[in-house]
Amino acid sequence: MSDKIILTGDRPTGHLHIGHYVGSLRQRVALQNTGEFKKIFIMIADAQALTDNFADPGKVRRNITEVALDYLGIGLDPEKSVIFIQSQIPELTELTMYYMNLVSLARVERNPTVKAEIQQKNFGEGVPTGFVCYPISQASDITAFKATTVPVGEDQKPMLEQTREIVRKFNDIYAPVLVEPEILLASNEACLRLPGTDGKAKMSKSIGNCIYLSDSADDIKKKIMSMYTDPTHIQVNDPGHVEGNTVFTYLDAFCKPEHFGRYLPDYANLDELKAHYEHGGLGDVKIKKFLNEILQEELEPIRKRREEYAKDIPAVYDMLKKGCEKAEETAAQTLAEVKHAMQIDYFS
Amino acid sequence: MSDKIILTGDRPTGHLHIGHYVGSLRQRVALQNTGEFKKIFIMIADAQALTDNFADPGKVRRNITEVALDYLGIGLDPEKSVIFIQSQIPELTELTMYYMNLVSLARVERNPTVKAEIQQKNFGEGVPTGFVCYPISQASDITAFKATTVPVGEDQKPMLEQTREIVRKFNDIYAPVLVEPEILLASNEACLRLPGTDGKAKMSKSIGNCIYLSDSADDIKKKIMSMYTDPTHIQVNDPGHVEGNTVFTYLDAFCKPEHFGRYLPDYANLDELKAHYEHGGLGDVKIKKFLNEILQEELEPIRKRREEYAKDIPAVYDMLKKGCEKAEETAAQTLAEVKHAMQIDYFS
Repeated sequence: MSDKIILTGDRPTGHLHIGHYVGSLRQRVALQNTGEFKKIFIMIADAQALTDNFADPGKVRRNITEVALDYLGIGLDPEKSVIFIQSQIPELTELTMYYMNLVSLARVERNPTVKAEIQQKNFGEGVPTGFVCYPISQASDITAFKATTVPVGEDQKPMLEQTREIVRKFNDIYAPVLVEPEILLASNEACLRLPGTDGKAKMSKSIGNCIYLSDSADDIKKKIMSMYTDPTHIQVNDPGHVEGNTVFTYLDAFCKPEHFGRYLPDYANLDELKAHYEHGGLGDVKIKKFLNEILQEELEPIRKRREEYAKDIPAVYDMLKKGCEKAEETAAQTLAEVKHAMQIDYFS
Repeated sequence: MSDKIILTGDRPTGHLHIGHYVGSLRQRVALQNTGEFKKIFIMIADAQALTDNFADPGKVRRNITEVALDYLGIGLDPEKSVIFIQSQIPELTELTMYYMNLVSLARVERNPTVKAEIQQKNFGEGVPTGFVCYPISQASDITAFKATTVPVGEDQKPMLEQTREIVRKFNDIYAPVLVEPEILLASNEACLRLPGTDGKAKMSKSIGNCIYLSDSADDIKKKIMSMYTDPTHIQVNDPGHVEGNTVFTYLDAFCKPEHFGRYLPDYANLDELKAHYEHGGLGDVKIKKFLNEILQEELEPIRKRREEYAKDIPAVYDMLKKGCEKAEETAAQTLAEVKHAMQIDYFS
């Protein structure tokens, strides 16, 4: 076993969907099951979610349950991964406050991820200070657990760089307490950002273009059968495009060679299927049905496990509470080292 | 006894001086001794001091001891006032993080006190985020103790207004948990901002124009005898100005009618002394000696008490530790109410 420690997580603002799944959740379970990591911390980032959902705390609260069920559904195992809730670890806010001294406001405002998110969101009364500062809060999440490895999407690269800067500055001014983390990206290109079922770049609850891990078999099928493909591919015999064709993007993310034997034995692999589609003569319904078989196979066991756990919500909260206790133990140890390095351990 | 609760404090970046004394400390002791307040919290704001002294935590640490001794010297009584250290109350950072969601960055940046301070200080690498956000941190200090009354200098008015805005917004969005505080200014005009001994508007350690509560009798006398007066008052018989004359500004702040009987019986009161100075025929040495008598009388018992406490620093830290425990009890209660109102009390 290596000395590597993972920290990652999700904002509880909605059910998790297959974009999350191929972008990070699937890999997370695989990493957990390698047994190669010393510790794995999975954070439900409710405090971060509140930075732009502060007026709707009920939504955040409800979605903590949903995200926890999604986690258990995909196979995250509380015996192997510490699943915890950000707001229940007060040490994280202390670290954030001290890190805020080490980052200029100009530097935070330059963060490209935050800049892009501010443009997307409609902050009527001005951007909340907490939202602008969330990269600093994220640095505290990562460093509190001395994470070496942060498996997140590519859009989070500037966040990791911010954390690394804070680590270097803290260690330089005070003492070498903190650990510089590395980003771990999903290896499959198609997984870095799965588009919505309508072909739009971003899956969004309000647009209704997501397939959720908790969707029923019927809902999944409906969403796939009405999926965006190639608007120039009108007749079956028309040549089609696979680039920008959502069905093929999804196949890139989910299809494995063995699926052909099971569901589409006329083709040896995805390349052959794509070639036929580009040449003409392959209809959208056929590829959609194939994608449906694959997704149903992948999502059914997740949904079943999820439903099983959903029968006993108090047990889920028990699991979360134990996770919070374990997480706080580690964070408190780091905070004690931080305070000692900063000479603010007056009574110890 | 009223239901009023006081919260006030000082940044531990140096010894406290007579500017602090007439501006707030003297009144603070008087308020304490009225017995009219339900609770009095006096905070040594080390975390706030670190926002612009993060690279020199040793300085902050040393000055916690000095400020605590200054407090005990002026007569703050740990039995009547809870003296505590900001960084030892982690609840304050949690409150700050949640309040940061309720204040737009534009609003914080508009704060005139912070703007002025940023201009004064030389932030080479850019203004630290923590410094820009300290008005929000101050709101958490005040509201954590449900303070009704904040005795501070006039320059802190925008801070109180920021706190009041946060209170209103929190209570409006979540539930009426927080209390809107009122500012309590020193009543004597001359006390609102005592100039340095060189007549400069601001007392500053680096300029060396402060009289400290810990100064020896000799140092006090030396500083008074070299004080800035009226540059046009060259001969004793020249008419003099009392406006902008530091000796008279200090007399306005410190002189009481009974001082004349004891030290300058030729005059009935300060108005008579001023009239003579303006008319001509009253030398600077005479008014400086009078001011010296008054300040020695006021500062000697403070210094003696201070020296007494300084003999047992561990006892001072014991007192601070007990104060922190009491303060944390109150802050934890408020935080629990805040979290309940925000629905983030998942396990209770």
